[in-house]
Order: sequence, then structure tokens, then C-alpha cells
Amino acid sequence: MKISKEKVRKQFSEWFDWVLSEAEIYDYGRYPLKGVGIWMPYGFKIREKVLAVIRKLLNETGHEEVLFPLLIPEDLLRKESEHIVGFEEEVYWVTKGGSKDLDVKLALRPTSETPITYMESLWIKSYKQLPKKYYQIVSIFRYETKATRAMLRVREVTSFKEAHTVHETFEDAAKQVREAIEIYKKFFDTLGIPYIVSKRPDWDKFAGAVYTYAFDTIMPDGKVLQIGTAHHLGQNFTKAFDFKIQKRDGTLDYPYQTSYGISERAIAALLAINGDDHGPILNPYIAPIQVVIIPIPAKDDETTKKIINYCNDLKAELDKNGISTYVDTDPERTPGEKFYIWELKGVPLRLEIGQRELNNNTVFIKRRDTLEGISVPRSAMVDEIKKLFEKIDKDLKENAWKEFNSRIRYMSDLQKAKELLNAEGGIIEVPWCGDNSCGLKIQEITDSRVLGEPDEKKEVNDKCPVCGRQAKTVLRIAKTY
Amino acid sequence: MKISKEKVRKQFSEWFDWVLSEAEIYDYGRYPLKGVGIWMPYGFKIREKVLAVIRKLLNETGHEEVLFPLLIPEDLLRKESEHIVGFEEEVYWVTKGGSKDLDVKLALRPTSETPITYMESLWIKSYKQLPKKYYQIVSIFRYETKATRAMLRVREVTSFKEAHTVHETFEDAAKQVREAIEIYKKFFDTLGIPYIVSKRPDWDKFAGAVYTYAFDTIMPDGKVLQIGTAHHLGQNFTKAFDFKIQKRDGTLDYPYQTSYGISERAIAALLAINGDDHGPILNPYIAPIQVVIIPIPAKDDETTKKIINYCNDLKAELDKNGISTYVDTDPERTPGEKFYIWELKGVPLRLEIGQRELNNNTVFIKRRDTLEGISVPRSAMVDEIKKLFEKIDKDLKENAWKEFNSRIRYMSDLQKAKELLNAEGGIIEVPWCGDNSCGLKIQEITDSRVLGEPDEKKEVNDKCPVCGRQAKTVLRIAKTY
Repeated sequence: MKISKEKVRKQFSEWFDWVLSEAEIYDYGRYPLKGVGIWMPYGFKIREKVLAVIRKLLNETGHEEVLFPLLIPEDLLRKESEHIVGFEEEVYWVTKGGSKDLDVKLALRPTSETPITYMESLWIKSYKQLPKKYYQIVSIFRYETKATRAMLRVREVTSFKEAHTVHETFEDAAKQVREAIEIYKKFFDTLGIPYIVSKRPDWDKFAGAVYTYAFDTIMPDGKVLQIGTAHHLGQNFTKAFDFKIQKRDGTLDYPYQTSYGISERAIAALLAINGDDHGPILNPYIAPIQVVIIPIPAKDDETTKKIINYCNDLKAELDKNGISTYVDTDPERTPGEKFYIWELKGVPLRLEIGQRELNNNTVFIKRRDTLEGISVPRSAMVDEIKKLFEKIDKDLKENAWKEFNSRIRYMSDLQKAKELLNAEGGIIEVPWCGDNSCGLKIQEITDSRVLGEPDEKKEVNDKCPVCGRQAKTVLRIAKTY
Repeated sequence: MKISKEKVRKQFSEWFDWVLSEAEIYDYGRYPLKGVGIWMPYGFKIREKVLAVIRKLLNETGHEEVLFPLLIPEDLLRKESEHIVGFEEEVYWVTKGGSKDLDVKLALRPTSETPITYMESLWIKSYKQLPKKYYQIVSIFRYETKATRAMLRVREVTSFKEAHTVHETFEDAAKQVREAIEIYKKFFDTLGIPYIVSKRPDWDKFAGAVYTYAFDTIMPDGKVLQIGTAHHLGQNFTKAFDFKIQKRDGTLDYPYQTSYGISERAIAALLAINGDDHGPILNPYIAPIQVVIIPIPAKDDETTKKIINYCNDLKAELDKNGISTYVDTDPERTPGEKFYIWELKGVPLRLEIGQRELNNNTVFIKRRDTLEGISVPRSAMVDEIKKLFEKIDKDLKENAWKEFNSRIRYMSDLQKAKELLNAEGGIIEVPWCGDNSCGLKIQEITDSRVLGEPDEKKEVNDKCPVCGRQAKTVLRIAKTY
């Protein structure tokens, strides 16, 4: 069977909404409030799996999970002047308790630098306690005025993993930003989501940061999605909160901080990146259901019963081997309807079990990604499935990276770059002298958004298309979500 | 060493605040907003363990985890008339997004019957989909005007497990309430928290419920804490939302619902119930750290180093056996300081390892609950520790239940009941004719709160102390949190 990606690329929006609702992942647009969604049971399980990956990576590297209050009193949020300016127009305010007006307005956290810095100033007194690395996974709220989109641009971000760290020196914090980038690389590598890391331009860094790195991926429609950020906060927040520590040399000084975040956009990318016209394809090591077994009824009830028993035996064997399996015995759906729904749910392997398999003591295994099927003896089933998991994992990742890399191009002509972005999306690297004014001009001329520059400056044998001086590096531009 | 419970009983409030802050479980009262607390890393781990217990019990019984929006538009919350009256004065309202006034006020969920029923009305069309059992673990918000208390009465309840179910008939829903009670019994039994289940009086049932069952426990100071509730919601919400299903007989009708909840009060009870003047005592099967190893330094550095290596070897062996272990090598604290802090953190067993243990290849094991120590050969360590876990688990539970049962008394004289409640707290069962008016009068005379009546009516050979008629059952009264 030929795999088509026509729909997912050309009508991505419709495809994505169809997947979220039909596969019962995330109900969006029906709750009577704009910009919020509901994680349905199957979606919740995918979310759990993804969060387990990041939790493990963070716990292994000395991060400690905590839980801070949702509500931030107005004066706390206003402490760091650049920060509040950045978020001012996006904050939801609680102004009433019961029928009473509150004395102080309370913000729904748009992010937690301010409450966390405030508490850190009470908890941390000495360099001996450093580095300190906290994280939490919470809902954050942004009163987005732009068009909201399921999972991609929402007003309640329900799966925000925010890490916050404290360090003695600027360099320690800079190293922490590097650690964050390494952790996120492992995270996205595990999920099989290709990415590019850019240093965001000064005019687009996090409100209150010294500098910001960001992870971007390219969605099937060619538009770029920011899927992670890491910020060096310098002493901006510690100064605002008068948070000092005793340093190694006995003096008192403000410590340095970083923060870094990811959200359910990682889940959106996971669903989209490997999608085809049958739905998403989940990585076997992330899928909450790794194998679905579909009994194909026989003509007589007795044989059908035997087939179902055989299916249940197979499930027991797979479960015993740590393979999460579901047998779909729903009598009201035909096998064809079941194929459709489980492909749409992205389950990486399905077993089609009918009279032939029962009689021959075999299983027929179908890969979700290639839709290729093979028949193997039952005794070889577990090994074959484990081998296929490895293969699917490898193939999905290779294909995703190949596709991703093919969509990153270098161009020095801004008009052509603009046309290409309009036609195909992707990421274009253009030569750049390094001046912000030229960067902003590039953004304007190409009607795009600047993602930033590469981490390591790239040698470019070209001139800045705006000022004509020798380029020092490249600037990445794209159409973004 | 004699165990004292003087402080935990006589100055419970101070004891509890001391434990939460000194053991770094939950920072309360320092964040600049009344009634909210912060789960610190150690507390967060305890919370995770407790939530894992309830998740497992719910998943095993066909409950599906979901995640609903925090914000509830005003008209949605107002749909069920009794419900909104019950919560009206406790709701936080979001009225602004950025600097703009919102068109519709948004409530921070005080509980989620309304959003969940709304979505269920879109998802569930037929009896064939029933029963449906959802749950989520989220923050809920109550603008409490009474005195707030760390973990016991807060404005952001951060660990609210709310389950919501849908059924075809009233009886099915009633059975579900029974299932909920059984699940909660297992939950509290696992944690070792004693409880009594009462049917709440009509005047104190959940706003919108047909009837409410509640779990209560007795805190060390004698005051009673509600730690769980289960409600039969009848058709109250389904009617309000015009949510109909196709029934088995082909007709359309409103289905029946239940809801049931627990919160971090379960964690507060876990910490308090087995507390002594050294701090809480965690159940070995709940403790995030089950064994702490304290190296006792020798006079010379070389031996000290060998002792620490020995400690690390022991940890490796315990970890391999699935026993969560921590070696406290902090050079800045004396062994005595370490004993103090790990007792305060409630770790069920500690190993004290010095030169003697090193030379003899033994370990010295001290129980947190009895503070008794024994020396065993290293080869017997794992078995001994596993045996001690079982014993501690059993002893803690037995002691807690013994204490709890001794504090439940029967009395027919209301004046004496009042005096006893004032002096010692606990729960008193008084004879009752069954009339609400007499129940309210009992509450007034004894200056207490009615918990309700037993599930099975008790035969009482006494008269109702208010009206003088033959009592039909008992009414439970207490001083409550």
C-alpha cells in the first residue's frame, strides 16, 4: 500500500483537528471558552508518556520537582520591570473572591520566575547550596489575542514544564543553559522530533533574559514551531528580588539564574511530524498502546470464539514481555473500521488474527508506518515485534530528519527567500552582518520571522543583503506558528 | 528510648507547622498570598507516592484519567442552581485579560461537575458507553473566608483527585458510590490512616448531590478531619445540562452521575496520624526514602573513608533489592544532627555505620517508630530490613487504629458530650430519632458539628435526647477542622 502524505501537508490544519478529535486525544473548540482544550483518556496517556521522558532526564541531572502556587500577587509579578512589560497584555487577572473585590489583583501565572525567585530568596543563603535546579509541570495562562489553535496556541497551556536554576557565577549559569540544551536534545531525540537550535535575536528573547536559545521544528505544512526555550536570566530577577547569597570568597552578591521550558507543543509535534493521511504514527517507545490485536471473525461462532481466545493468549504473552497490548473485541465494529481507528490512533503495530493464524499457529503483523505486513510463527512473535519496534523507531527518526534537513536552505537573495517561504515554508538561512537593524530589515523584507543565528557562528562567503558588508554568520528566517 | 507524643497532641498546630517547614515538605505562610503553600522537593516526592496509590486503585477499576480546563465561564457554573448557591461565595473570578475587561467572568474551578457534565453531554450518547468513569488530579480554588491552615484548609487545593462517573440508572450510580467507598477504604488502608464512613446529614451534603458519604479521621489533637467524600448526584446535573442518552429500552432519558474526591488532606493525615515528638513516621511502603544510612566518622580520615565506602556498598545492595536508600555524607553535619533531621523527615529505618560495623561486617538498624536498634550481619541486612518494613507497616496501622477506636465513644447525655468534646475531641455517637430538626438541635446544644449517621443504621436502646422518642440510629458529632 502506498503511503500518502498529501493531506497532512496540504491541509495540515484540518488533518490535525481531525486527528485530535477522531482519535480522542484532545477535545478542542467545543468547550465554551476560546483557546482551551481537554485531554481525553487516550491523549492523556500519550501526554503521560511524554512527560515521563522529560521527568526522567531532569531527575537524572539533579533537578528536583516542586509545585508552586498558580496565583501571583500583582506586585510580585511587577518586580522585574522588563518581565512584566513582556507579559502585561497576556495576563489573566483574578479580581474577585466570591462577591468581594480583592485588595490585590492576582495573576494566573504566565510563567513562574517571580514566585520561584521570591521563595528561593528565603531558601538559599550560600554558594554551598548551589547549583539548585527546580522544575514543575503545570498549567500556565496567556491571554492570547492572536488566533488560537488546538495545542499549538492556547490560552491554558496545560503541560508546561518549567525549570528554574540558581548559580554562583554567570559562567555556571551559562553552562546550565548548555546542560538544558543537551537535555532537550535527548528529549526530542527520544520522541523523534527533529530540531534546530538558534540563539534568538535580542528583540525576541524572553522578557527578563540576558539571552535565549530556542528549539524549532518544521511542521508538515512548512511552518516552524518553537518547541523549547532556554534562558540565561543573569542577575535580573535576583536583583529585582534583592536575593543575595554568601559567595565562596565570603562576600554577599546576587546569584545568577536560568530558566527553560517545554510544553504540549512537543506532543503536537510528535503527532504531526510522522503523520500520514491515515493519522499520526507514534514512536513504539512512546505509544501508550504498542500493539493492537484485531480478531477477524470466522463464519461460525465457535471458530470466532477460538480466535478471540487465541488473541487473548497472544496479549498475555506480549504483556508478560513488557509490551503494552490491547485486544479490540468490540462486536459492533468491523475489522475494517478497527483498522481505520487504530491507524488513526497511531498504534505502531497491529496483529490481524483470523482463522488462518489460528490454524497455523502464526500471527500476521502489520506496521503502521509502512503498512507492510508479515506472517510469523507464534514462537517468533515477541522477538519479531521487538525487532520491528527498533526498526520503526530508527526509520521514523531517519525519515523525519531527512525531511527536516531537506527543508533548511541557504539563500542570499531576500526576494527569492520570501517567495520560497511563501510557497513551501521551511527554514532559510541568509547571510547576515550581525547588526540588529539589518536583522529587523531582513525580517521585514522577507515578511517572515527571524529565528536567530546558529550557536556556532557559521563562516559565510557572502555579503549582508541589507548593508552589503561582509556577513559574519547566517540568520535563520521562517514562517512561524 | 521512650517515645513521647506530648507535643504532637497538645500543640498539634505548632508541631505540624514545624514538621512541614523543618522537614522541607511544604512551605506555608511565607509566600505573599494567604492560604497557599509550596510543595518542596521532599514533600513533592511524598505527594507523588500518595497519588500513585490512588491512581493505581482508580486505573484498576476502569477509571480513565483526563484533564479539564481550569477556567469555567460563569453561565456554565450557574447551570445547576443548588451547586452555584453552595459555591457562590467561595469562587475566585477572573475578570480581566491583560488590561481588557472580559465579556464573561471566568471562575477558577472550585470542583469540575459543570465542565465535565457539559463535555460528557457531547461525548456520551448511549447506555452502551456506560458506565463511564473519569478522574483528574488538579488544583482547585476556594476563597475560604475562615482561618486558613497549612494543607488542611487552603485556598489553592493543589492535589484534588476528583472522579466523575455516569450511569444508566439510579441504582447503578448508587453502586458506584459503594465502589468509591471501597476504593477509598483501600487507599486509606494502604496509607495506614484510620477512618469512619458517615452519611452526611441533609443540611451538609455536597451542593447539588442527592446524598453524600464522607470519610473522617481524628487528628492527634482530637479534632476531626474530613479526608474524602463520595456523592450520588442523581440527575441534577444531567438535567441542568439537558444531557440525555439513549437507554436500553430505546427511550431517551437523563443519565445518573456520581462524583468523589480526596485531596492533600490525606497527606496531612498521613504525616500527623503516626507522629511523635521527633516528627512524622512514614509508612515504609509510602516513604520516598525508605532507609537512610548515616556514616559515623572514625578518628582517622582513612578509616572514615572506608566507612563511607562501606555505606555506599550497602546502598548499592539495598537499591538492587528495590529499597530506596540515601547515604547522608554531608561533612558539615554531625551524626546527631543527621539523626534529628531524618527522624523529622519520617524515614522508617536508619543504618548507623561506624568503625564497629565496618570491622565486624555488620549493620546497626534503628526503627523510626520505636527508636529501637539492632545489629545484624551484613549478609542478613536485606532480609531483616524487609521484615522490619512489614513489622513497622503492621505496627503503625494497628497503633493508629487502636488510638482512633479509643476516641470514638457513645453518650446519651448531650451536656456531657459537649464537655468531652471540648476537653478531648474525638467522635461521639449520640442516640437520634432521625429527624433533621433534632439533629440540628444536637449540633447546637453540643456546640459541635454533625458528621452524620453510620451507613448501616445502628440499633440503639435509648431515646433521642432532643425529642425523647425512641432513637432509630446514632448521630456522630465532633469538633472539626
